[in-house]
Amino acid sequence: MKLLIKNINLVPIDGKRELIKNTNIYVEDDRIAYIGELKEDIKADVIIDGKGKVAMPGLINSHTHIGMSLLRNYADDLPLHDWLTQKIWPTEANLRAEDVYWGSLLSMVEMIQSGTTGFCDMYFFMDEVGKGLEQSGMRGILTRGLIEEKGKEEEKLKETKELYRNWNGKGNQRIKVMVAPHAPYTCSPSYLERIMELAYELNTGIHIHLSETKKEVEDSIKAYGKSPIKHVYDLGLFNLPTIAAHCVHVNDEDIDILKENKVSSVNNPGSNLKLASGFSPIDKMLKKGVNVALGTDGSSSNNNLNMFEEIYLASTVNKAVNMDAVSIPALIAIEMATINGAKALLWDDDIGSIEIGKKADIILIDMDKPHLYPIHNIVSSLAYSVQGSDVDTVIIDGKIIMENREMKTLDVERIMFETERAAKDLISR
Amino acid sequence: MKLLIKNINLVPIDGKRELIKNTNIYVEDDRIAYIGELKEDIKADVIIDGKGKVAMPGLINSHTHIGMSLLRNYADDLPLHDWLTQKIWPTEANLRAEDVYWGSLLSMVEMIQSGTTGFCDMYFFMDEVGKGLEQSGMRGILTRGLIEEKGKEEEKLKETKELYRNWNGKGNQRIKVMVAPHAPYTCSPSYLERIMELAYELNTGIHIHLSETKKEVEDSIKAYGKSPIKHVYDLGLFNLPTIAAHCVHVNDEDIDILKENKVSSVNNPGSNLKLASGFSPIDKMLKKGVNVALGTDGSSSNNNLNMFEEIYLASTVNKAVNMDAVSIPALIAIEMATINGAKALLWDDDIGSIEIGKKADIILIDMDKPHLYPIHNIVSSLAYSVQGSDVDTVIIDGKIIMENREMKTLDVERIMFETERAAKDLISR
Repeated sequence: MKLLIKNINLVPIDGKRELIKNTNIYVEDDRIAYIGELKEDIKADVIIDGKGKVAMPGLINSHTHIGMSLLRNYADDLPLHDWLTQKIWPTEANLRAEDVYWGSLLSMVEMIQSGTTGFCDMYFFMDEVGKGLEQSGMRGILTRGLIEEKGKEEEKLKETKELYRNWNGKGNQRIKVMVAPHAPYTCSPSYLERIMELAYELNTGIHIHLSETKKEVEDSIKAYGKSPIKHVYDLGLFNLPTIAAHCVHVNDEDIDILKENKVSSVNNPGSNLKLASGFSPIDKMLKKGVNVALGTDGSSSNNNLNMFEEIYLASTVNKAVNMDAVSIPALIAIEMATINGAKALLWDDDIGSIEIGKKADIILIDMDKPHLYPIHNIVSSLAYSVQGSDVDTVIIDGKIIMENREMKTLDVERIMFETERAAKDLISR
Repeated sequence: MKLLIKNINLVPIDGKRELIKNTNIYVEDDRIAYIGELKEDIKADVIIDGKGKVAMPGLINSHTHIGMSLLRNYADDLPLHDWLTQKIWPTEANLRAEDVYWGSLLSMVEMIQSGTTGFCDMYFFMDEVGKGLEQSGMRGILTRGLIEEKGKEEEKLKETKELYRNWNGKGNQRIKVMVAPHAPYTCSPSYLERIMELAYELNTGIHIHLSETKKEVEDSIKAYGKSPIKHVYDLGLFNLPTIAAHCVHVNDEDIDILKENKVSSVNNPGSNLKLASGFSPIDKMLKKGVNVALGTDGSSSNNNLNMFEEIYLASTVNKAVNMDAVSIPALIAIEMATINGAKALLWDDDIGSIEIGKKADIILIDMDKPHLYPIHNIVSSLAYSVQGSDVDTVIIDGKIIMENREMKTLDVERIMFETERAAKDLISR
């Protein structure tokens, strides 16, 4: 398909220009073929009028657990320990493959409707998420969360291997698979070493939780005499490309290790606030040269998957934390949600910016709204004023997935019906 | 008009019940006449089907400067001092009455569309805001911000007096007028005393900025040997009912003074984050018994007037600040935006909750959205998941102001056109 987006303001995130006014974007099949003045010889099958809209790269949710949307608003305002042990874990133990299927589809609807085109997921029954990715047309990384469990260690590794065989490269390369040790406090050093072997065997990257809470860091120091980051670094984990979710409680040595080993940190401000985990020093990390991406975490600690909310939080919360109104300016927060996410997911050759030759993962924002008027500065508006519901059109891999907020690939009513049913059923089990 | 809202889930904020399932609300003229099982003798002119919706009290934005929407996204990511002195103040100096008129109407559209039914405004050209209140059908408190200016002291007081005479009690009592010394750092003690005399003369309350920044507190200690709150307390300001915006940098003595004098504090988390002002200790204030309401501040430091965003921020940010996942639970944050706002605005006899005999300021949320599914806990959802754009219907003073997101009182296209034009004109002056 040849797609032309005409007369549009473009925030390309190409590291060169903040805004290209009134331009045209031409997409051939899955890739961006041309950006610039309209040429007469351009023949398009579909033309989208960009007037009153802004184009930007699709948002990348670099750390989430999308099956958890079934537990949205199920357990809130509880101490972290009670939340996990009394509510989340017992309920998750009753989850079935079908639940994860519907929960994941619900999450994909929500992500598409708020401008996310790609994500990195960690959960279980991951084949169901793969099916959802095929159907929805989204781009994603599947990782089966590995928690060490006596007698099941090899079985879970085998599941990861099968997941890789079944899904890696599928859907015109929209789907990738990585290996996901859940955290250093749920995987022993010897299990982590087995997991690393598997990652080398599959020639893929690592997705792990690191230093999310103060207690986790204190426990690591008690157990190993070092921080979680130093601990896994000493085990050699960072010789593999690594996506490190959270990195909230990190010291200067930790930051240096992340930087030197090109580990990407994923900031999840909404979840870190709601679970009272704390404030990740992302300004410092970014200034030291760490690649910091952005994620929502799961819907049971957020309680949504709205990346525009995370951009807003990253850009405002850190100003107050650092007592510096210039901390994490709008463009930096938007980069975290786009190009930095692409780098974290080892996908920046293809996505994360709107440039000729890259895959066409593009979202259009409808700026013709009272809460976005008057329009003084579009980049500012994207970080501080735009809401997820202002996303008008979503293009992934050159295909129109949502247009004028109409969903093209998923049956939203059916998905809502099935998730409501599945959630009721799950709670009563 | 007799209005019936049928079969609706109600979050009444009445201090008794969190949620009343599947009930009916009957409104006669401007007041709530009945809540409960449907009676046969109820005759309604208009019936709204509440299926799939939630009713709650209209949100109250207890501190804002709505004319500033003309400067939305005009000056961001600047140090506070440069923002004010190089951008905001020089531009405000060029504002004309007509600009404030259109800017205020734009803000009213935005507030209605995101569920706000009442607000407390501080700005100038306040007659224009009065006109907007009459047209929009909103409820509001007008206050003319008083900054001491050599030779203009009495003129500004006279403007306040005229504002009171022109607008107090107008629009079926939807409009009230209070007296607004801008801040103790812009009004000398003698000017504050003149302002207090005027408030006694008009028998009305005070709206003032207090302890917004660390520098303000340090300067007050240098100048008066005490905090801004202690300073105005010693001057007798708190003998008048007072709405104190911000109260970010407050010590225990300040909090005790607020409590003992029944001063309402208005938390503006979005603005305090973005301007790097800091974190108001609202959990502590609430626990000590201070009435803490919620506001957006102006659109040039927020950058919107979306009270659902402020509820989300109040309930999540304080969890991380206090390292306590139970801090500011959902219901408390919603109370801040409703009944506590009504108390701050001396309006809780009439608004702030949905109870028989109160004025009908009611909003309906459309819960039939993927990002709100499945529905486990409605109160939780209102704080952590619902977006301003989920507001479906807005009723103020018994009148339908927005229905199925269709605006009934204001010409939105005209207002957007005029504000875009006025903003361009203003910047080029």
